Amino acid sequence: MSHSSSDRIAQALREWVASAPAGTRLPSTRELVAHHEASPVTVQKALRMLMGQGLIESRPGVGTFVCTAPVARPQDYGWQTAALGSPQRSLPRPTAALRATANDMITLRSGYPDRDLLPERLVRAALTRSARGTSAVTRPPVAGLPDLQAWFASELGQLTPPGVAAPAAGDAVIFPGSQSGLVTAFRALVGAGESLVIESPSYWGAILAAAEVGVRLVPVPSGSHGPDPEDLDRALTQTGARAFYAQPHFANPTGAHWSPELSEAVLDVVKRHGVFLIEDDWAHDFGIDEDVVPLAARDEDGHVVYLRSLTKSVSPAIRVAGLVARGPARDRILADFQAQSMYVSGVLQAAALDVVLQPSWRSHLRSVRSQLASRRDLLVSAVRELIPSAHLDAAPRGGLNLWLRLPDHTDPHQISLACEQRGVAVAAGDDWFPAEPVGPYLRLNYAGPNPGAFPEGARIIEECLQRPQG
Amino acid sequence: MSHSSSDRIAQALREWVASAPAGTRLPSTRELVAHHEASPVTVQKALRMLMGQGLIESRPGVGTFVCTAPVARPQDYGWQTAALGSPQRSLPRPTAALRATANDMITLRSGYPDRDLLPERLVRAALTRSARGTSAVTRPPVAGLPDLQAWFASELGQLTPPGVAAPAAGDAVIFPGSQSGLVTAFRALVGAGESLVIESPSYWGAILAAAEVGVRLVPVPSGSHGPDPEDLDRALTQTGARAFYAQPHFANPTGAHWSPELSEAVLDVVKRHGVFLIEDDWAHDFGIDEDVVPLAARDEDGHVVYLRSLTKSVSPAIRVAGLVARGPARDRILADFQAQSMYVSGVLQAAALDVVLQPSWRSHLRSVRSQLASRRDLLVSAVRELIPSAHLDAAPRGGLNLWLRLPDHTDPHQISLACEQRGVAVAAGDDWFPAEPVGPYLRLNYAGPNPGAFPEGARIIEECLQRPQG
Repeated sequence: MSHSSSDRIAQALREWVASAPAGTRLPSTRELVAHHEASPVTVQKALRMLMGQGLIESRPGVGTFVCTAPVARPQDYGWQTAALGSPQRSLPRPTAALRATANDMITLRSGYPDRDLLPERLVRAALTRSARGTSAVTRPPVAGLPDLQAWFASELGQLTPPGVAAPAAGDAVIFPGSQSGLVTAFRALVGAGESLVIESPSYWGAILAAAEVGVRLVPVPSGSHGPDPEDLDRALTQTGARAFYAQPHFANPTGAHWSPELSEAVLDVVKRHGVFLIEDDWAHDFGIDEDVVPLAARDEDGHVVYLRSLTKSVSPAIRVAGLVARGPARDRILADFQAQSMYVSGVLQAAALDVVLQPSWRSHLRSVRSQLASRRDLLVSAVRELIPSAHLDAAPRGGLNLWLRLPDHTDPHQISLACEQRGVAVAAGDDWFPAEPVGPYLRLNYAGPNPGAFPEGARIIEECLQRPQG
Repeated sequence: MSHSSSDRIAQALREWVASAPAGTRLPSTRELVAHHEASPVTVQKALRMLMGQGLIESRPGVGTFVCTAPVARPQDYGWQTAALGSPQRSLPRPTAALRATANDMITLRSGYPDRDLLPERLVRAALTRSARGTSAVTRPPVAGLPDLQAWFASELGQLTPPGVAAPAAGDAVIFPGSQSGLVTAFRALVGAGESLVIESPSYWGAILAAAEVGVRLVPVPSGSHGPDPEDLDRALTQTGARAFYAQPHFANPTGAHWSPELSEAVLDVVKRHGVFLIEDDWAHDFGIDEDVVPLAARDEDGHVVYLRSLTKSVSPAIRVAGLVARGPARDRILADFQAQSMYVSGVLQAAALDVVLQPSWRSHLRSVRSQLASRRDLLVSAVRELIPSAHLDAAPRGGLNLWLRLPDHTDPHQISLACEQRGVAVAAGDDWFPAEPVGPYLRLNYAGPNPGAFPEGARIIEECLQRPQG
């Protein structure tokens, strides 16, 4: 019995109930079964949903009836204004990347890969097996399932050059997604009021996490080749920042991929200043022209705190990320994590481990790589041919996004609104700047549904750039 | 293929590999299948685990071999001491309630109900269905699955007296467990450096969450009947605290259950002071002699922020809690939640909803109630008969714990250590006090495995009270 069919019926009934006066009797289950061409089980489930929501009530032997409408009168929460006072930290509003978009839209905005790019069969099989396993009814250790910790550590260990000590399973902490990993790393390693150096532009979720913790962001410019080590050096010297948050591989949004030389240079600066590099390897599974080699693999003495999520590449439902840190830093992170979350559901951890241990996980990653390659190439050529008034740097060698520079003096928010009105969802670049945007940008994501519509989307973007007022 | 069997084989292989020199060839799969009496699939899974951990490597056509041992040399993380500085907040160390206990121990310490008390069949079926549903491969809205929000709201709504507006689905926010709900409520409604009134003793997780957020705790004494409204009134006046965190129903650890009169009185004080009551209804499904009627059901104007988790009553793997708040408070909470966690896995939300909508969920709760009744009565009589030197107030009318007063000048930590050495796991009461403990207590949990051993456990506790030095 699929959720969707009973959901569909529940939705239809909800509309019917909303329009019916209180006390109206519902059609019999038999009638509903016939009307919705569904099984009695499915219809019963839909009815239970509405009962659970207090919309209908069943009078045994009599029938099911629309409940008397709940009291509706305007509520006054005015007293809360005084009680809450002005917020200690004002958080940025939810970004475009999390906003839902209508099905008929051309979506170049989604932050999560389309369902076609997920190992759906593997995920369902893994969840089904976990549902049978002990993890479905037991509590895992605070730091995570040992075998999953070991997997995250060994993924790094296999890339560790000889002579460098590979991370141990115990160095990994399992988080319910990378956002909580970022919040905990920022709080445990930097702390409220202290400074954190960040690339500009950078991942909006990291900017949000910093605001949440109350750390002071120190932006260093970062273009399509990554940041300039001298800028980083200067920023660390001037601010006494405690850490540098960066995405060295296919950065969101710029797509920047650090060269081995830049990686070495950054590691040197970080070590010289005795600070942490918080390496967000969000696109580890989304390399297109090359694979990711984390800086953490070359870390000798716990300067790099490594964060790697499975949510985007396995499934949004597998809310599992691994954070690898060594020394006292790891202990601080674990203590903060426990105070935040206690532990991550063992079912999700077991399912994540199950997926990445399947032989077909490797072949899935290979097919994702080729799909992303053609999606990227399609969008890049569409942008180059059909959006002449905008500028695109070199195509990214991995990741999910293009970072499109708009003509000077265009307002990206106005453009994204205009595009949305014409059925194309794009994200204004401003959300990705920790400080004032240095220019008008759009972030175009090529991992969304219906890549066939990329050219049409590009055409409409160009139109909006020509006549933003429509 | 169950996780446990492949785990068992993986564990055996791990030991074998640890003792084998690098390069040693492993027995063939056929040999392993025969040796472990397991299916080839299970053996393969165990082998993949070890490969994933870099312990063994497969040379196609040749065989599987023990990997060359990783570099092992002492690491020096000394630089981190300077980088981290002294912690901004020092967090209490993990409490006894989360510590694992050996299988052969008599466990009166576990914070989570024994597997016998979980709706295991329902949980596995629900997870299996969710694995098939859309929630396995899609991202739910930030605030939660609408139908699950509606369920949490309606559970309160069904207890809302006529004339009072019932909470709406949109007032509920789904959290990955109640710990993150507490942290977010404390941060969004109170904030670092501000004061929060709390019962003493109270739930250690709330004390941990307060330390995490950096709120200043203002304890009011709370015995087996709950706090004195005048103490609360005084505390709020003197400290200008912004909220009162309380467990009005079968409080952990005291078992206190507020009378309707006390509930009214507390609501009056809270309203008069224009502050929030953060109602932690952790034991909603564990009423024994009576049902829980949340104060939130009688809340007219958003003074009560209601937190209710399904983790303890459904499964530790279903890390799902609902927080119901109204007005600007709800918006602040949602903003903080998004910055913390983005969203909760849809699979867990769908499974939780599936379980609580099953007709057999109700019958399961009835059977849990009777099981808890006999477990409680068994432990109460064991304590009364066999631990004469300790004092127990009235037996709790619900919840999972007895709060045992030890003779003056006993050290509960010393007692719990002595008991542990003799195979009985108990929790020293000190963890539950936000300030200095007012006396020596043990918390005895009667929801753990093997209730038949309660009398034996009680006998040993008494022995330890007589001769703590053993």
